[in-house]
Amino acid sequence: MDTKERILREGTALFKKYGVRSVTMDDIARELSISKKTIYQFFKDKDEVVTLAMKDFIEQEKEEYAALIDVKNAVEELALITKCILEDLDDINPSLIFDLQKYHPKAWAIIKEFQNNFLRKAVVRNIENGIKEGIFRDGLDPEVLAVLRVQQIHMACDNQLFPLDKFSIYDTHMKLFDHYINGIVTEKGKEYYNNFLRQIDIPTTNHY
Amino acid sequence: MDTKERILREGTALFKKYGVRSVTMDDIARELSISKKTIYQFFKDKDEVVTLAMKDFIEQEKEEYAALIDVKNAVEELALITKCILEDLDDINPSLIFDLQKYHPKAWAIIKEFQNNFLRKAVVRNIENGIKEGIFRDGLDPEVLAVLRVQQIHMACDNQLFPLDKFSIYDTHMKLFDHYINGIVTEKGKEYYNNFLRQIDIPTTNHY
Repeated sequence: MDTKERILREGTALFKKYGVRSVTMDDIARELSISKKTIYQFFKDKDEVVTLAMKDFIEQEKEEYAALIDVKNAVEELALITKCILEDLDDINPSLIFDLQKYHPKAWAIIKEFQNNFLRKAVVRNIENGIKEGIFRDGLDPEVLAVLRVQQIHMACDNQLFPLDKFSIYDTHMKLFDHYINGIVTEKGKEYYNNFLRQIDIPTTNHY
Repeated sequence: MDTKERILREGTALFKKYGVRSVTMDDIARELSISKKTIYQFFKDKDEVVTLAMKDFIEQEKEEYAALIDVKNAVEELALITKCILEDLDDINPSLIFDLQKYHPKAWAIIKEFQNNFLRKAVVRNIENGIKEGIFRDGLDPEVLAVLRVQQIHMACDNQLFPLDKFSIYDTHMKLFDHYINGIVTEKGKEYYNNFLRQIDIPTTNHY
C-alpha cells in the first residue's frame, strides 16, 4: 500500500471512530508516524482527505454487495444487504454522518449518489426477483418502493427527523427495515424472513 | 362571508385547479367581479394571498380529521385519514405543490408544519390504538413509524424523488400507503383493511 492509500485508510478508520470534526490532520499524521507535511504532499486539505476516504469506502461497499450474488432468494439478499448496512452503522460514530452532512457536502454527495443510484437499482432488482419467487406481494411497484427504501436509509441518518439525543441511527434503521420487509412479503416470504433473521447474526443493539 | 374570505376561498379554488404560477391577481379579481385594487386593500401581495389561503385550507383539514372521532378501529381511522388525503390530492393540480415548494416557502412551511406536528401526532395515537386493538403488530415503535408515514407523504410530493413526468403524486401516495399499512398490520388487521378498502370509495386513479 502506498503512502496516499495508507493516509486514506487511516483517515477512514479515525473518521468512523470519532467523526470528522474531532480528527485533525495532526492526528492522522501521528497515527501513521509521518509528518503533516507528507499528508499535504498528497492532499490539498482535510476536505479532500474526507472526500477521497468516503469514495474509497463506497468502492469497498460496492464490492461487498457484488459478493452477495450467491443468495438463495430475495428475502435472503435483502436481509444480507441490510446486515451490511447495519454492520457499517454499528461501526460508525453517528458524528461522522452528522459532520459529513454539515461540513463536507462533497463527501456526503458521494454517499447519497451511491444510495440513490447503485443501491436504488439493487433494490429494484431485488423486488422484481422477490415477486417472481412468490415471496414478495404481487402488484408491488419496484420503482416506487426502491425510492422509499433508500429514503428510509437517509431518514434514519437525518438528525432533524430523528434527533440523536432521542433516537439511535442503528435502532431506527432496524425498525424501518423491519417495517419495509413486512410491507412487501407474502406469507411465504414472511416465514423465510423470520427464519433467516434467526440464522444471521444481526446485532440488535450497537455501540452508540 | 366578507370580501377577504371570499378572496381567499376563490384563491384556494383557483390555486388547486391551476397551481399558483398560472393564477394572477387579475384572474382572482375577474372571478369575483371585483377590482384588483380591492384585493390589494386586504393583501400586500400574491404571496400573502397564497400563504393565508393555505392556512385556511389547513384549518379545514384539521376540522375534517377531528370529525373522524367515531371510527370503529385503528385500521378504519387510518384508511379514512388516507381517503381525506387522497381526495385532496385528487382535487389538486400537482403544479400547486410544486409551485408552493419552489416559490412560496412560507405557505409550504405551513403545510409541512401541519404534517410534521398535527398529522404526526395523529399517526402516533393511531398506532398506539391499533396495537391495543390487536390489529397492528406488537413491538412497533409509534414514534419512528409516524415519522416514516409523514415522510412518505412528503416523498410522494417531491418532484426530485418522483418526477411528475414519470410518476403521479396520487398513484405514488396510494402505493406508499398500501406498503405502510401492510407493514404494520397483524393478520386480523389485514382482513379489516381489505374489507374496508372495498367499502369506502377510494378512487384508484385521479384526474392528473
